[in-house]
Amino acid sequence: MKPAGAIPLGYAADDDFMLRIGGERVDALIAAAGDTPLFVYDAALLAARVARLRAAMPGQLAIHYAVKANPYPPLVAWMAALVDGLDVASAGELHRALDSGIGAGRISFAGPGKRDRELEAAIVAGTTLNLESAGEADRALMIADRLGRVPRLAVRVNPDFDLRGSGMRMGGGAKPFGIDAAEVPALIRRLIAAGADWQGLHIFAGSQALDAAAIAETQAATVALAASIAEAVGAVPPLVNLGGGFGIAYFPGDVPLAVEQVGAALGETLAARAPILAESAFAIELGRWLVGEAGVYLTRIVDRKTSHGQVFLVTDGGLHHQLAASGNFGTVVRRNYPIAVANRFGRAVEEEVSVVGCLCTPLDRLGDQVGLPRADVGDVVALFMAGAYGASASPAAFLGHPPAIEMLVGA
Amino acid sequence: MKPAGAIPLGYAADDDFMLRIGGERVDALIAAAGDTPLFVYDAALLAARVARLRAAMPGQLAIHYAVKANPYPPLVAWMAALVDGLDVASAGELHRALDSGIGAGRISFAGPGKRDRELEAAIVAGTTLNLESAGEADRALMIADRLGRVPRLAVRVNPDFDLRGSGMRMGGGAKPFGIDAAEVPALIRRLIAAGADWQGLHIFAGSQALDAAAIAETQAATVALAASIAEAVGAVPPLVNLGGGFGIAYFPGDVPLAVEQVGAALGETLAARAPILAESAFAIELGRWLVGEAGVYLTRIVDRKTSHGQVFLVTDGGLHHQLAASGNFGTVVRRNYPIAVANRFGRAVEEEVSVVGCLCTPLDRLGDQVGLPRADVGDVVALFMAGAYGASASPAAFLGHPPAIEMLVGA
Repeated sequence: MKPAGAIPLGYAADDDFMLRIGGERVDALIAAAGDTPLFVYDAALLAARVARLRAAMPGQLAIHYAVKANPYPPLVAWMAALVDGLDVASAGELHRALDSGIGAGRISFAGPGKRDRELEAAIVAGTTLNLESAGEADRALMIADRLGRVPRLAVRVNPDFDLRGSGMRMGGGAKPFGIDAAEVPALIRRLIAAGADWQGLHIFAGSQALDAAAIAETQAATVALAASIAEAVGAVPPLVNLGGGFGIAYFPGDVPLAVEQVGAALGETLAARAPILAESAFAIELGRWLVGEAGVYLTRIVDRKTSHGQVFLVTDGGLHHQLAASGNFGTVVRRNYPIAVANRFGRAVEEEVSVVGCLCTPLDRLGDQVGLPRADVGDVVALFMAGAYGASASPAAFLGHPPAIEMLVGA
Repeated sequence: MKPAGAIPLGYAADDDFMLRIGGERVDALIAAAGDTPLFVYDAALLAARVARLRAAMPGQLAIHYAVKANPYPPLVAWMAALVDGLDVASAGELHRALDSGIGAGRISFAGPGKRDRELEAAIVAGTTLNLESAGEADRALMIADRLGRVPRLAVRVNPDFDLRGSGMRMGGGAKPFGIDAAEVPALIRRLIAAGADWQGLHIFAGSQALDAAAIAETQAATVALAASIAEAVGAVPPLVNLGGGFGIAYFPGDVPLAVEQVGAALGETLAARAPILAESAFAIELGRWLVGEAGVYLTRIVDRKTSHGQVFLVTDGGLHHQLAASGNFGTVVRRNYPIAVANRFGRAVEEEVSVVGCLCTPLDRLGDQVGLPRADVGDVVALFMAGAYGASASPAAFLGHPPAIEMLVGA
């Protein structure tokens, strides 16, 4: 038997072992949706997550939601009402963010390959562009000039450090993201001279880290870098976006991030910041940490079979909806996400099974040799940690199955 | 500099170094499509591939196209006219296959998690179902009985061997695919007794192999297994589908599969087959090998930037269209697919660059430290081997960019 990740807090069952999500029974949720597979997002868990973060972080820190983690429109609208800003990574996400009702001035747009039409959409909307290169700065200034607009421009910095223990390094050394720190002051001076509305700095050093000390150290280095850039420019950055990097505990043995420890350290870092940043605002942008644990992927067992003594539960879902859970996105070694039988939730483990998807490829494995209560055709498998990088980050069209249904409950 | 895979045969440039695909210049193709990124599939290369396969294989062997490799409707229709059958893996693919104009009797449907409604669609259409388990057999018989139809049923066998050197093992040991060989004869007797139209056997031992000897050995073992099953049943399988497994040479150092060697060996295998298979028909089903090399992914450079001395070409495409090329689907170690600058095709290498996509994630790398002629904003990058498992096998919705355009040329 192989271990699976720990089921996150906030999930419990009725007396008949039926899992509830957002206060609703899974059988009722599926009946309401009309079919499986189904992503269910718990609005109350989302709100609790934001509240916990606010309590942990220094009072002046703005919290942004990175839409890329989950762009499901009702979820984006719910998050928009809870956070201080939305970060987007394409014109498509920009339109979703605007549709949420948040003001354009509270949206920022980062991403290394913005096309002219995307720069134009952002400038017309009045959204902040986080510039990723000198060439992009030129294009943005040219488009703004043609439109007769004053563009809101921030500069994304490629720092010389990265986030230790980060699942994905986004800074340190040669990177496609942002502008090398040494070249940033000259660029900012050029933006200001060109009449742009300079919005500040965006410094993102990594993601999916669980080590509070590493995040605190990176945030301290980020604030120091922002100060040195500000001093070199001779101007106060209106906003310093410290990036994100907060991970969640997907796998066996992962210890959830101590955000309170991060917040305490950040409070000290901000209190001790250089005078030139005294009037600056600060933000963090989080995607996965805010929404990942609040989502559950529900898929029904279509077949139960034994091959050479090993039991397989074949479901109607798969990697076309949950690519990362199958171990095929951003991970080298496949490990099991937290998994349960939704209508036997809390029951004892009775057997070792492999849970596979309906795709005709050996890559499509949702649970590899996991321990579960006995389950059969018609039962429902719950895969947790499905709130981030699930439906939108999976190859939905692969093999021609229907897309998953999505649902926000408790909003 | 890191190596990239070899550009497949069939691609050349005009005197001005503009790549042609299917006889058309890339600049004209992009103008016709109206935008990038763009997948272009060359109908003549597809036809040549089928012709080469027919010439290499024994005359009596039927050739099936596995729609999962590329379900773009005009390509499926083109392939349907060239091959003897289509294999599908979902009701969605079944409908695409039927739309191609091929008769339902030349379609077979395999896949481990077929839902009742999918079984029903296949039975109503008159398509062959490759049964994946005893439970699925029960469901198919029950549905056919309810509908008053005689179902066309084949049995997918999980062989006790696998394909050596296979990129993905689909047989050998405990597997979610098919029915363990030892249990197959009893199941077939049961199908025949229940009045089903037994269509034969489907035996698929692996995929993406480049070693002709290994494929030949597996095919010989597959024919022997089919004979032993037929003898145990005491009935002649109308069709033995030998599966596929033919790989293509994506990566540096890969040597293309010698299909002529496979065909010669298969001819000997079939000539020497057991008497009980004398009247059986034989088929192979191929996806990737038939269509992979005939597709090119074209993406335009949006930004050129230097970070710590390393040049990045940032394109408007990325892993949302070409997940496998980014190294994130079914591969452990990322290696470079064949890559070129489409409007400098055939020019000498001038610099080392990394080609990245427009997604805001470090996973989005299309070419890592490859040697290319100098390219700048507006130039077009061509990524080869994009005909199989490209657009449909990638997370198209990730980060909210538009889907890629697809085009079949020369049909």
